[in-house]
Amino acid sequence: MSLDLAKIEAAHERIRPHIRRTPVLTHAALDAACGGQLFFKCENLQEVGAFKARGATNAVFSLSDAEAARGVATHSSGNHAAALARAARLRGIPAYIVMPSNSPQAKIRNVESYGGRITLCAPTQQAREETCARIVRETGAVMVHPFTDERVMAGQGTAVIELLEDVPDLDLVLCPVGGGGLLAGTAIAAKTLRSALRVFAVEPAAAGDAAESFRAGHIVPLTQAATIADGLRTTIGAPNFAIMQRHVDGVVTVSESGIVAAMRQLWETLHIVVETSGAVPYAAVTEKKIEVAGKRVGLILTGGNVDLDALPWSKS
Amino acid sequence: MSLDLAKIEAAHERIRPHIRRTPVLTHAALDAACGGQLFFKCENLQEVGAFKARGATNAVFSLSDAEAARGVATHSSGNHAAALARAARLRGIPAYIVMPSNSPQAKIRNVESYGGRITLCAPTQQAREETCARIVRETGAVMVHPFTDERVMAGQGTAVIELLEDVPDLDLVLCPVGGGGLLAGTAIAAKTLRSALRVFAVEPAAAGDAAESFRAGHIVPLTQAATIADGLRTTIGAPNFAIMQRHVDGVVTVSESGIVAAMRQLWETLHIVVETSGAVPYAAVTEKKIEVAGKRVGLILTGGNVDLDALPWSKS
Repeated sequence: MSLDLAKIEAAHERIRPHIRRTPVLTHAALDAACGGQLFFKCENLQEVGAFKARGATNAVFSLSDAEAARGVATHSSGNHAAALARAARLRGIPAYIVMPSNSPQAKIRNVESYGGRITLCAPTQQAREETCARIVRETGAVMVHPFTDERVMAGQGTAVIELLEDVPDLDLVLCPVGGGGLLAGTAIAAKTLRSALRVFAVEPAAAGDAAESFRAGHIVPLTQAATIADGLRTTIGAPNFAIMQRHVDGVVTVSESGIVAAMRQLWETLHIVVETSGAVPYAAVTEKKIEVAGKRVGLILTGGNVDLDALPWSKS
Repeated sequence: MSLDLAKIEAAHERIRPHIRRTPVLTHAALDAACGGQLFFKCENLQEVGAFKARGATNAVFSLSDAEAARGVATHSSGNHAAALARAARLRGIPAYIVMPSNSPQAKIRNVESYGGRITLCAPTQQAREETCARIVRETGAVMVHPFTDERVMAGQGTAVIELLEDVPDLDLVLCPVGGGGLLAGTAIAAKTLRSALRVFAVEPAAAGDAAESFRAGHIVPLTQAATIADGLRTTIGAPNFAIMQRHVDGVVTVSESGIVAAMRQLWETLHIVVETSGAVPYAAVTEKKIEVAGKRVGLILTGGNVDLDALPWSKS
């Protein structure tokens, strides 16, 4: 892999007119509860409601005019799809989106609102990939993979650049890991800018392939992903795994109840809408999976697309 | 009344170390839906979850050491109470808080979390005032009224100063009105800084005393307030009414269903937690009570303290 800081910085310049520089929130009560200082990078406040805007926009605006004219295509559980549809609309090109049929309604509506052309498929990795490959054959669109595409990884790495501009002296960065696009960009940007900074990946124990792969030294595919964190029900990608092995200090897992409790606490305290996947790094703090006392900790709140009719604490 | 821009600017300097400069959010889809450009000043992202942090902090830090030593007292439906408790803790003095017994649990917990000493009373204006007067007699605490106190109004006016720094060329500002503390500070600051700017007050039709008073030319007390917007169930204060008569361009009312729909749309689109009262100005846009097409419109999202177990769209 040749992803490096220069590519991430170039991505930052390229996407700057099209994305939001998201705020970093803090809260005295959350700090008091953990003994550290927490800095929440609010990627849920991106216009598409997720950091995915960064990578998708970088991919779309990296294309030549000839490539762009045929459109872009992807498969995604939702946020990358919306982000790609929005970026394509900004460039005036079509976006072909393959989504699993069990995607939350809020995420499907989100893609539609940006003019994405949706094809639903069975909720398996194989069905997603096959359906998308067929569409690429038929349309000539450029495939923009949600996490193995280097342009996508470079774009995702721009969030931590902004976080370190706002809070230069972080000790730790906590980043959720699903396919590993955000993690790859984050780890390379953070470690290159500040070699002493430690980067930890966090994932649901119920979709703990990254932790298992990290220990094993090779990718252990996810066979079952019974987690509520729908954005993280993905096996880590091969290039993402390689970057994780080299640049990430550790991978920890959190419980399902911990994710829901962390999510609710963020809503009540920070007054923002964070989706289950986005609450995963904070769950690592509340479940004490990572020692944060006395440390300055950056947490990437990845997204806020939630079905308000199916909140996890109102199931009874 | 002698509230003027100089006092509001002095308040801004005084409270700057203790409050958050809140972000201004925008969203292309919300703009497209109304034909205007909307700028949401996110006071729900204050650490206490409401703009009330501004006025309460200004009041507490305006006190002499001798005054401060006896503590502060107030009656409030919640957000002012939490804000005063927090400001008092920052100064190291007690805060005596009288709250109606039907306050949302989230607001009571919020006050407790800042060390406020709570006394519950019957949910009437009279009970609130009598209980608070008794506590002031017993403790010698300084009463900080939630909206008629000039120091409070000055503090509340600092939000629109920041909004106009970030978005200088606004045409309109929409501000909710309950007791009128925010409205008074906002109108004086906005009109003094930019005389061409129009300021509109928005309130629930089910608590429409400000609109009725504005038309009548004298205060028409609220006899019933059956609105879901619990922060606005208050008759406008006398000094607030005088400022409104002189500096506000109009008062419009919105429906209960409009408030809930606006609130939900803000959650889903901006990915922030806004309480019912905070969604009221946006309801004036969605219900077309104010013409915004082609205009640049500032909306003050006043608060985000919500009981997540009792969301208004999950009542069935």
